[in-house]
Amino acid sequence: MAINYTEDIQIEKSKTSKIANVDFNNLAFGRVFSDHMLVCDFKNGEWQNPSIVPYQPVTLEPSAKIFHYGQSIFEGMKAYKDSDNNVFLFRPVDNFNRLNISAKRLAMPELPEACFMNGLKELIKLEKDWIPTSEGSSLYIRPFMFATGQGFHASPANAYKFIIACAPSGSYFSGKVKVLIEEKYSRSANGGVGFAKAGGNYAGQFYPTQLANNRGYQQVIWTDDNTHEYIEEAGAMNIFVRINDTLLTVPTSDRILDGITRKSILTIAEAEGIDVEVRKIKVAELIEASENGSLKELFGAGTAAVVSPISGFGFKGKDYELPELENTYGALLKKRITDIQTNKSDDPYGWRVKVC
Amino acid sequence: MAINYTEDIQIEKSKTSKIANVDFNNLAFGRVFSDHMLVCDFKNGEWQNPSIVPYQPVTLEPSAKIFHYGQSIFEGMKAYKDSDNNVFLFRPVDNFNRLNISAKRLAMPELPEACFMNGLKELIKLEKDWIPTSEGSSLYIRPFMFATGQGFHASPANAYKFIIACAPSGSYFSGKVKVLIEEKYSRSANGGVGFAKAGGNYAGQFYPTQLANNRGYQQVIWTDDNTHEYIEEAGAMNIFVRINDTLLTVPTSDRILDGITRKSILTIAEAEGIDVEVRKIKVAELIEASENGSLKELFGAGTAAVVSPISGFGFKGKDYELPELENTYGALLKKRITDIQTNKSDDPYGWRVKVC
Repeated sequence: MAINYTEDIQIEKSKTSKIANVDFNNLAFGRVFSDHMLVCDFKNGEWQNPSIVPYQPVTLEPSAKIFHYGQSIFEGMKAYKDSDNNVFLFRPVDNFNRLNISAKRLAMPELPEACFMNGLKELIKLEKDWIPTSEGSSLYIRPFMFATGQGFHASPANAYKFIIACAPSGSYFSGKVKVLIEEKYSRSANGGVGFAKAGGNYAGQFYPTQLANNRGYQQVIWTDDNTHEYIEEAGAMNIFVRINDTLLTVPTSDRILDGITRKSILTIAEAEGIDVEVRKIKVAELIEASENGSLKELFGAGTAAVVSPISGFGFKGKDYELPELENTYGALLKKRITDIQTNKSDDPYGWRVKVC
Repeated sequence: MAINYTEDIQIEKSKTSKIANVDFNNLAFGRVFSDHMLVCDFKNGEWQNPSIVPYQPVTLEPSAKIFHYGQSIFEGMKAYKDSDNNVFLFRPVDNFNRLNISAKRLAMPELPEACFMNGLKELIKLEKDWIPTSEGSSLYIRPFMFATGQGFHASPANAYKFIIACAPSGSYFSGKVKVLIEEKYSRSANGGVGFAKAGGNYAGQFYPTQLANNRGYQQVIWTDDNTHEYIEEAGAMNIFVRINDTLLTVPTSDRILDGITRKSILTIAEAEGIDVEVRKIKVAELIEASENGSLKELFGAGTAAVVSPISGFGFKGKDYELPELENTYGALLKKRITDIQTNKSDDPYGWRVKVC
């Protein structure tokens, strides 16, 4: 009999809550976890047993393919509360669709939309009290899928687990963000998995990012692996550039994540009458614009980072400072997008989804 | 006090053995696992508690970074038994060194040599009866390391687990191996992690390999991500080409694994007086050599696959057959390397390491 992902969610409530131990005014990013999680298992060719259970450890065989062959993908989302305690998600179907795009590229089973959306909504209803309301805070939601099927043969697993967990979180960055434009290491290949939210894409960035951290930069802006002449993305966020009054970002590709914040910003910027160009951007163009004073802003955009202004960048041993402007595009676009997310403004695009 | 990785290995023996249930004459590759495994944990900046325990599940927090950010690496080795029941490993220090090369690139903690080597030897001594002796079989050994530290922030974990597990295994391939030379997808980027045995490198290959499988090819030969004009490696093995009487393979790079079987074959081939060239190989050169009859052999080399002859390759919709020769380089080199591994010949290179 077909599984009904709406009616068949089993809910086992936690006997105690950890919520009293959490200081909601001093939240780090992704460090404390709420009381429950959604779990669903893929076996015998089908996603089954969707259930909400107390947040708890996962037990796996040592030969589970997640440990050996990197079949792991994830999404990042947030839940927001307005002043009347209504709870909202932001474009959740886009996260669902992207999860399945990632799944396909990593030879993992796609998830039914009802399983994702109903499981997500039921979980968020139950975790409603975990949504922080202080400025810059939100309930970060982490849907993820990984291979549980066994074997030391390099081939796709036959079993998987899908989990949604939640972490009440503060800002992703603390303080100013300076970036290094990478000229040696790379994040992704043409024809590779850079467009997917695959675990392996992140592990590969850590070492070059540590090298950048040691030199005083918080993030790396990746460049194309062949020439290092073109900027791509920053791993945890897409990159926007303002030259004079034009807002630029690079096109998505098989190397670059199709960010939901990125595309929302493009839509809002156009509605605001900002001149927007989506095209390849040379590092040389950034440097020339910095030197002639036409480079006004640089910011990152992503679910975790929201809109994060970049204060300067390094390239080939030289540092370039961004000017400190008032009335930036970054601040305007951040306000517009967070106002929609938190129900402080109209939502002409239908992006906000009320949960309860 | 400093940990002594020789004296401090705790051994907890399994109360029962699964060995009677295993048909050692009909072994698949990496499907059944021996009675024990080595486990060591990295926490508080140190690898600690090396222990051999019954093969058993691993329990992890849902926020363990292995699930989210792909920090996982592995090695592949084999143990062999000679006719006097002496047990040998093949160049194990090379696996140890490569594990640490992978660890560094993925921002994971390097392992002390004594921890790896003593743990490995103690485990293999205990699992001696699990080493198959039939032709083409061996005890496949899988050292692997993954992130157990928690958090939804994209940064390296602060805790890791290292495990060595064993699987008595038959041949990696069954039947003829036909390969597809890839012209769209890629395995790795310049400046990426292709040279590391990182989990994520494998997951990214599965979907293109499935597409190739659907067209009747068992493996993909990857090409450079920029032009797809040069062959690289086959994911589970390095590639060797014989044109007339010259044996060719491509140089290792940051995109190509430094295979232990690959470099052993290069050494043996030179000792056999075979003309060897390590240089870039164009797909066009392969096709021209196939068309003019100078392409004599194509074979893969790797720990799991040993030396696997390739019967044909596809490129741009056309299939190219390899001739069926007697006295191939592949067969000769396979005999020489397995004779050293199984103590059937002298070992002038000091590659064989006696365990017990």
